Amino acid sequence: MPLLQFHVLEGRSDQEIAALLDATHRVVLDVFHVPLRDRYQIVHEHKPSRVRFEDTGLGIKRSDKFVLVQITTQRHPIEQKTAFYDKLCAELERSCGIKPTDVMVSIVENTVADWSFGLGRAQFLTGELHGAMEDATSAPRGSKQPAELAGASPGRPT
Amino acid sequence: MPLLQFHVLEGRSDQEIAALLDATHRVVLDVFHVPLRDRYQIVHEHKPSRVRFEDTGLGIKRSDKFVLVQITTQRHPIEQKTAFYDKLCAELERSCGIKPTDVMVSIVENTVADWSFGLGRAQFLTGELHGAMEDATSAPRGSKQPAELAGASPGRPT
Amino acid sequence: MPLLQFHVLEGRSDQEIAALLDATHRVVLDVFHVPLRDRYQIVHEHKPSRVRFEDTGLGIKRSDKFVLVQITTQRHPIEQKTAFYDKLCAELERSCGIKPTDVMVSIVENTVADWSFGLGRAQFLTGELHGAMEDATSAPRGSKQPAELAGASPGRPT
Repeated sequence: MPLLQFHVLEGRSDQEIAALLDATHRVVLDVFHVPLRDRYQIVHEHKPSRVRFEDTGLGIKRSDKFVLVQITTQRHPIEQKTAFYDKLCAELERSCGIKPTDVMVSIVENTVADWSFGLGRAQFLTGELHGAMEDATSAPRGSKQPAELAGASPGRPT
Repeated sequence: MPLLQFHVLEGRSDQEIAALLDATHRVVLDVFHVPLRDRYQIVHEHKPSRVRFEDTGLGIKRSDKFVLVQITTQRHPIEQKTAFYDKLCAELERSCGIKPTDVMVSIVENTVADWSFGLGRAQFLTGELHGAMEDATSAPRGSKQPAELAGASPGRPT
Repeated sequence: MPLLQFHVLEGRSDQEIAALLDATHRVVLDVFHVPLRDRYQIVHEHKPSRVRFEDTGLGIKRSDKFVLVQITTQRHPIEQKTAFYDKLCAELERSCGIKPTDVMVSIVENTVADWSFGLGRAQFLTGELHGAMEDATSAPRGSKQPAELAGASPGRPT
């Protein structure tokens, strides 16, 4: 379910792209505990003249290997998000040679009713899938069930 | 107002793209009851090596005609969203020959203050347009007015 | 932090693109009071056959200089958003010759936990940066702190 869109400068090889996507998916699996095939990734390659990637004054130097990952996902606890940022940088450095200074992430959240994976069905509502916050085996303090969940998925297995 | 972004593999003809956009807009009009010219559609065409579209373990087979539709829109009741998923699949199969196994949708919601259609104005706040949840002639149980609406559109006709 | 994605028709020169990005960033700085280098901009150029940009029945005539700006940002007061729409149109007309009828904006909001600018850190949570709503020197009536903020940034300077 998470939909990941990668923004990179043009010029990477097919192998580099594949390694980036595989490495990121490993971290998604590890941190968000989604099914193995819960993988939706899109790479947008841009000419340098068509982007501006600065650093909000944080003193972070960018290179031409900069990656901006936009994630659309159901709600996740803050602890999972911060773990994702941390582990993504470690894994991209380890397996792709991308520096932690070149990894930026922006997340936008939606709800269980906002996804259809095919067949015209909202699989989180039909009970074919269950939502991210339910899946958290160690839900942190303050985590909340998505507001729509209670009344919306009567067929969800308990 | 809904902004629709289509992600497809490259290789479709202009006619196929036009049919996809027209068919989808018919379903938007039918389900979300927006004005006829409330149409904002963008097609992103991708090389196979630049995307990964799997199935979350649902056993849904994808083909090279796969379409991921990202929608940015004001809030809609769950019933409208599920009707949209269902009718979109039916319409794309009927008029474009796209299989229901190849149709995925992801929705992100915003509010009446988050749109300007031109002229520097927020037309849902000025009263030139009215919001989606207001427009629902058969608002379902549990539907809520956007939180910002009450105080924000004094000029809205009643 | 705001991430801006521009959708335009192909055919603009490098100079036109640079002017569009610079002008828009001036308005972001002016209205949202972000750091000078809080600049993340991506231009997507589209073939005419791959987009549909209409007018929601508002009678707004579009030209081939149409620009749709998608913004992902932390929460901002309504007054800032409406000021942004207004000033963006004025600035794009003044410095780029883009008509106010050709400027559309769509905003999606997220929270302080949803951004990592590099180094695997969520800089709004670590205290390296502070959130948009906190920064508003003239917070309007009804502005709220992001719900997650209170408990999430113990190291934030006061």
